[in-house]
Amino acid sequence: MAKGKKATEETSKLIVGFGENIVHEIKIQKPPKFSTVARSRSNIVFDSKKGYLTLGKATEERNFINAAQTKRFMQTVAIASKCYKFLNENLHTSIRGLFYQLKYSLGEDIDENIFSEQAESNPLIEDLEASLGVRREDLNLNATRRGVLAGNMKVIDSYGDDRITTDTSKMGRSGWAIPSDVDNEIEFVDVKAKYVLVVEKDAIWQRLNEDGFWKKENCILISPQGQATRGTRRLIRKLADKGLPVYVFNDGDAWGWYIYWTIKTGSINLAYIGSDIATPEAKFIGVTMSDLEKYTFLKKMTLKATEVDIKRAQEMLEYQWINRHKEWVEELKKVLKLKMKLEQDTLQGPRLTFIGDYIREKIKNQDFLP
Amino acid sequence: MAKGKKATEETSKLIVGFGENIVHEIKIQKPPKFSTVARSRSNIVFDSKKGYLTLGKATEERNFINAAQTKRFMQTVAIASKCYKFLNENLHTSIRGLFYQLKYSLGEDIDENIFSEQAESNPLIEDLEASLGVRREDLNLNATRRGVLAGNMKVIDSYGDDRITTDTSKMGRSGWAIPSDVDNEIEFVDVKAKYVLVVEKDAIWQRLNEDGFWKKENCILISPQGQATRGTRRLIRKLADKGLPVYVFNDGDAWGWYIYWTIKTGSINLAYIGSDIATPEAKFIGVTMSDLEKYTFLKKMTLKATEVDIKRAQEMLEYQWINRHKEWVEELKKVLKLKMKLEQDTLQGPRLTFIGDYIREKIKNQDFLP
Repeated sequence: MAKGKKATEETSKLIVGFGENIVHEIKIQKPPKFSTVARSRSNIVFDSKKGYLTLGKATEERNFINAAQTKRFMQTVAIASKCYKFLNENLHTSIRGLFYQLKYSLGEDIDENIFSEQAESNPLIEDLEASLGVRREDLNLNATRRGVLAGNMKVIDSYGDDRITTDTSKMGRSGWAIPSDVDNEIEFVDVKAKYVLVVEKDAIWQRLNEDGFWKKENCILISPQGQATRGTRRLIRKLADKGLPVYVFNDGDAWGWYIYWTIKTGSINLAYIGSDIATPEAKFIGVTMSDLEKYTFLKKMTLKATEVDIKRAQEMLEYQWINRHKEWVEELKKVLKLKMKLEQDTLQGPRLTFIGDYIREKIKNQDFLP
Repeated sequence: MAKGKKATEETSKLIVGFGENIVHEIKIQKPPKFSTVARSRSNIVFDSKKGYLTLGKATEERNFINAAQTKRFMQTVAIASKCYKFLNENLHTSIRGLFYQLKYSLGEDIDENIFSEQAESNPLIEDLEASLGVRREDLNLNATRRGVLAGNMKVIDSYGDDRITTDTSKMGRSGWAIPSDVDNEIEFVDVKAKYVLVVEKDAIWQRLNEDGFWKKENCILISPQGQATRGTRRLIRKLADKGLPVYVFNDGDAWGWYIYWTIKTGSINLAYIGSDIATPEAKFIGVTMSDLEKYTFLKKMTLKATEVDIKRAQEMLEYQWINRHKEWVEELKKVLKLKMKLEQDTLQGPRLTFIGDYIREKIKNQDFLP
């Protein structure tokens, strides 16, 4: 896996190798082809020992001399060629930007317009990532970014011409915006914290940031600001690799559970980079149905579970990576029985700072769902 | 309008005055009431001289002794009381947090649960804002934040216990995250830039940031990251107040136009704070249909306009604040004729850095839509 300062050269070499193999096969009069890991549902497995969704051993061949694959083969080669160029130029773009480059021209002399929809190029980027064993971020393709962080940590960012050190304990009300790529040309140093606290909603992040929660408790406070992006998931993984426990505080509803499980076990769509972005060590702080017994004021603060919440709870009970935890089975059965949901914002009811006390107590008592 | 360091005290005084009026009326045995500016459609006007959507002179009375209004009156007083508390505590929350505080308890001794949906409290917050002549941010209520900035400027942020100075030219790939409230306890100093460039999409912001566009051109580079929040619109207004021209670079489609016009003239929903958040001086850089003639490669990069784009273009031709500009009438008629749209990402087609050249040329030639 290409990472760090030498990433560009390493990834460039991989693309050159990819191209040389194709040229070699043409020279020896064989049909040019390459292989990639199968990303179909049947090859997505839950690794119960490691605790995340990943791909099985099935590979697939992309063959130029195959009427059904010729166009896609050409398109993938064009994508590889564009990414090689981006790496040489030391410039990044989005997958939308890549799509328009492909629409403009396939390469030096080829003015063929073989891309009409971005839906065509997206799966081929994944083919290339899986085939080369790199992430799109290594190919200078920026994924959507979202997420904010505060805590005792420094970031050394060599993106562009500058080398900028940012102290993420000095970001005021704004916090530090988590970038698309947290691997290449970026370093996280002086991480002086006891744990990572992830809170689903930005409004709750702001509340806790104002209380100086991360300072008092010496934690790294992150909000994915909704569903966690690739970059935010990767950063959480990297912080866990530094030995920090990861606690997630979300709504007790379909969306909150989904965000948690995506952080913990990865997701079906990103199973091909599961080991890079899943944090199986993560624990769920709440909000949980058993909070209703402990914090009795919550009883008047519940909302009616929606159909989506109910359906999601039923589905989750079917997933082996969830139903192997009896605590989650219990929690989800309570939801199905009570038909209620609880939001994390609720914990501001008694007083605005109560939300921090709730988290403190949960962590002190190690009162989590797995 | 309460702003700056004394904001808390000023706003608190306004709330006290609001309460004292009610108490006074009870004492003299009159029905307690307060008045607010009418926010109904019939009172929303386009101020053609100033160039933004605002409220007319119609006021509405909220009367306690009116069966239809009693509950809402009580609710508004409860909201005022909560905000007064937040100001005294020097703590902020979201309108969701406020809703849960109201659900928990209306005040010291009142355990009545008169709020069942947040939809009930939201319009009453606006009643209170309009009645007191403050923004919700002055009431320590955080609105959703989104948006990122880079440029030669410093921010002095006194939120919480610290007083933090951030140099927004040293934010690397992340940029500075625009907060919810850009008025209270925050200052923008050393703004050394020639203009403000707003780009709709974060991916384009990242592209231009990587190119050092804001550094080379000495501009403040902002992305609202989609629709501009209250905070981002207010910040653009404040930068325009410092004498900087504001140029907006968006997609040439329904959403891109909408984002532009919201920045320029404000919106119907926020007409009650129109003067604070609209920037009528803003100009539209593109992407425009006439770009198709100038940059001929764009012809193969167009997308088919969707039904939403067509419907929006038709609606826009009806708005007096748009159809008074003949250039916009021409542009929208072209859209309706060609049934095409163009995305800003397209300008990366020839090479990734072309997008900066396009903007440079547009600004050099002052080639804008009004």
